[in-house]
Amino acid sequence: MNRQAIAGEALGSFLLFATVIGSGIMAERLAGGNVAVALLGNTLATGAILFVLVAMLGPVSGAHLNPAVTLVMRLRGHIGTAAAAAYACAQLAGGILGVWAAHAMFAVPLLQLSDKVRAGPGQWIGEGVATFGLVLTILGTAKVRPGSIPASVALYITAAYWFTSSTSFANPAITVARSLSDSFAGIAPACVPAFVAAQVAGALAAHRVGDIIFSDVPKEIA
Amino acid sequence: MNRQAIAGEALGSFLLFATVIGSGIMAERLAGGNVAVALLGNTLATGAILFVLVAMLGPVSGAHLNPAVTLVMRLRGHIGTAAAAAYACAQLAGGILGVWAAHAMFAVPLLQLSDKVRAGPGQWIGEGVATFGLVLTILGTAKVRPGSIPASVALYITAAYWFTSSTSFANPAITVARSLSDSFAGIAPACVPAFVAAQVAGALAAHRVGDIIFSDVPKEIA
Amino acid sequence: MNRQAIAGEALGSFLLFATVIGSGIMAERLAGGNVAVALLGNTLATGAILFVLVAMLGPVSGAHLNPAVTLVMRLRGHIGTAAAAAYACAQLAGGILGVWAAHAMFAVPLLQLSDKVRAGPGQWIGEGVATFGLVLTILGTAKVRPGSIPASVALYITAAYWFTSSTSFANPAITVARSLSDSFAGIAPACVPAFVAAQVAGALAAHRVGDIIFSDVPKEIA
Amino acid sequence: MNRQAIAGEALGSFLLFATVIGSGIMAERLAGGNVAVALLGNTLATGAILFVLVAMLGPVSGAHLNPAVTLVMRLRGHIGTAAAAAYACAQLAGGILGVWAAHAMFAVPLLQLSDKVRAGPGQWIGEGVATFGLVLTILGTAKVRPGSIPASVALYITAAYWFTSSTSFANPAITVARSLSDSFAGIAPACVPAFVAAQVAGALAAHRVGDIIFSDVPKEIA
Repeated sequence: MNRQAIAGEALGSFLLFATVIGSGIMAERLAGGNVAVALLGNTLATGAILFVLVAMLGPVSGAHLNPAVTLVMRLRGHIGTAAAAAYACAQLAGGILGVWAAHAMFAVPLLQLSDKVRAGPGQWIGEGVATFGLVLTILGTAKVRPGSIPASVALYITAAYWFTSSTSFANPAITVARSLSDSFAGIAPACVPAFVAAQVAGALAAHRVGDIIFSDVPKEIA
Repeated sequence: MNRQAIAGEALGSFLLFATVIGSGIMAERLAGGNVAVALLGNTLATGAILFVLVAMLGPVSGAHLNPAVTLVMRLRGHIGTAAAAAYACAQLAGGILGVWAAHAMFAVPLLQLSDKVRAGPGQWIGEGVATFGLVLTILGTAKVRPGSIPASVALYITAAYWFTSSTSFANPAITVARSLSDSFAGIAPACVPAFVAAQVAGALAAHRVGDIIFSDVPKEIA
Repeated sequence: MNRQAIAGEALGSFLLFATVIGSGIMAERLAGGNVAVALLGNTLATGAILFVLVAMLGPVSGAHLNPAVTLVMRLRGHIGTAAAAAYACAQLAGGILGVWAAHAMFAVPLLQLSDKVRAGPGQWIGEGVATFGLVLTILGTAKVRPGSIPASVALYITAAYWFTSSTSFANPAITVARSLSDSFAGIAPACVPAFVAAQVAGALAAHRVGDIIFSDVPKEIA
Repeated sequence: MNRQAIAGEALGSFLLFATVIGSGIMAERLAGGNVAVALLGNTLATGAILFVLVAMLGPVSGAHLNPAVTLVMRLRGHIGTAAAAAYACAQLAGGILGVWAAHAMFAVPLLQLSDKVRAGPGQWIGEGVATFGLVLTILGTAKVRPGSIPASVALYITAAYWFTSSTSFANPAITVARSLSDSFAGIAPACVPAFVAAQVAGALAAHRVGDIIFSDVPKEIA
């Protein structure tokens, strides 16, 4: 197993989750109650850090930063079972440290639990569609235009923050980690399992649909 | 006829139209009445998903996602008549499913009709100019800098959402689909034909002007 | 003289100026008095269209779209005197048509004069610095990283809209054209000459400084 | 010692710091008290100018524009001691001129001292994390994807403005320079030393961690 790759996943998840939570706290504090303005700040920060992390860590670990992506890469045989399990642990551990770092930076208690209820068929469909689109973006772009993966992942999530009613968690590790923050970006722990189930369903659907849409399509550009 | 390409047009239109409608609903709900803030969110999401879809689906189907673009590609002989008709059907069917998916995600009734009147010479001129610019962007960028097509299309629409009084539909399929959503992004069904006529006129003008401006210009960069 | 290039300058200026004025009107109408939100929309639209136009028209005409840029290119011998004069006329004529198109799209009177006073040493220094930075960006990027010219010009103006007290006109043709619009982006005609003088001074400074900073620097990347 | 490189650092710092301060003043003036909107404008301008400056000045001087970056480049042997000292002086001198240029543009007194207290463990952790991430981004991207350095640096700072409670100064020269501006972007002089210490600590940590994460990782793309 590649220790450098696992360290990359942990470090990347640390920075990604710290950005999601930190920018959420910052946005909520400054926005004076205008939630759309808060979401603009949260979106800008998340999209921007995703470009950086995927560009930088892609050659190190593949820059999954997301157990749903790691699951699909396991199903496609791009990573072994033990490495996939280690990736998921690194994503979760690094990510939770990132949440706590954000709490430390904003001088709020490190240990929190969210009480923000996010549930209902609309949000579950949203998480399914959001994760479907994210995994499809990764599979398709890797096939036809690999040099655009960082931009495509960043911009996909930028869009998905706005087109789903849950603002697109689209990542089981970040869903668990966000349950540990009682802030703008939080989710009540009891709401986590349904979100994760919807995310896994969306990822598996993209795994299938990607084969249909992108098989035998030639690479267009590096 | 290439079934994979037609599936690509349907899937891309599904994600594009879901983003346009979904981000419109999200933006309107959160913006507390500040329509400029709502339009910023709607613009950011639409531009972002356009980059992703054009990058990913370009090699699959050309990523038209727009019957006005398909019409011009037919006139230029890049696609046959039967394929063009199938493209337009796929764009409309996939796109309407995307509208309904957005409605499901935001837990509003699936079947709606907009009552938002969008009409008048100003808006029709706007739709003509907007579609003219979009088709010219596609024709010009394809000629001189094909690797920039995803960024150019995304950024063109980003600009056009703001420089026209109608926020630039610039796409007959999306015009029809948006008539099925009584939300921020909607348009009353009775206003659709004039918008589509203006869009087709703009596209045809770009087809001619593109030949004048870009003939014999060498490719600059991939 | 290259008629295609001159047509490119006219068309590009038409779309650029229509975007500056149109997005200014849209932003002001929707922003409910929050001028920072209006400027965000105006900035986003202007930066976005600049990327598109410079990418697309660069190989056609150089995509000057600005008499200050054409002047510097004349001084550097990249364009002849007659062509430079034709470029400036095309920029002004195409651009004024773009202003009127924006007025038509937003259903306001075509012929207007701004009464927005923009004057004083602070704004003149701002126009000088803004145009200095723009021309330096073009000269430097063309030397070391020509493939990034569209992104660099777009992002430079994005920054300059915010770091100068005048929101960076940085373009004599657009300064004249904006005097013909009594809207968010307008400038009173009496304020135009001082702005243009400051812009020309900034451009000439960049012409000199560019030689110092970029001489003998190797190209880094296409 | 390379005079052209030192001039490049001075000029780049002039434009960067003028943008940070100028866009901060503009944003604060226009935002009508909505600080999140002001930070959006400040972020957009800073990220945009960083892309331009790093793209343009990278081949001239490396585009450090930051003594913390110069320190790490000295430790890694990419620059000599005398050149590093000259770089730091040029960054500080050029940057302070940039602050004063911003004051001139906005017609406020040139010489100011900030009285904005920015202190406490949360902000110091934030500066440490922010500078760690910035230096890691530079080291990692230079190793695996050097053509993306301008975009990565710009987008990293875009994210960091939002995920830290101090809005990420992440640069000792800009910290000193911002103490000379009693505006949105200011910092009280007494708060400067702790910020700089945290920044240096973060930079040194990235110097070590970068060796662990990126050693032996192949370059992916130019």
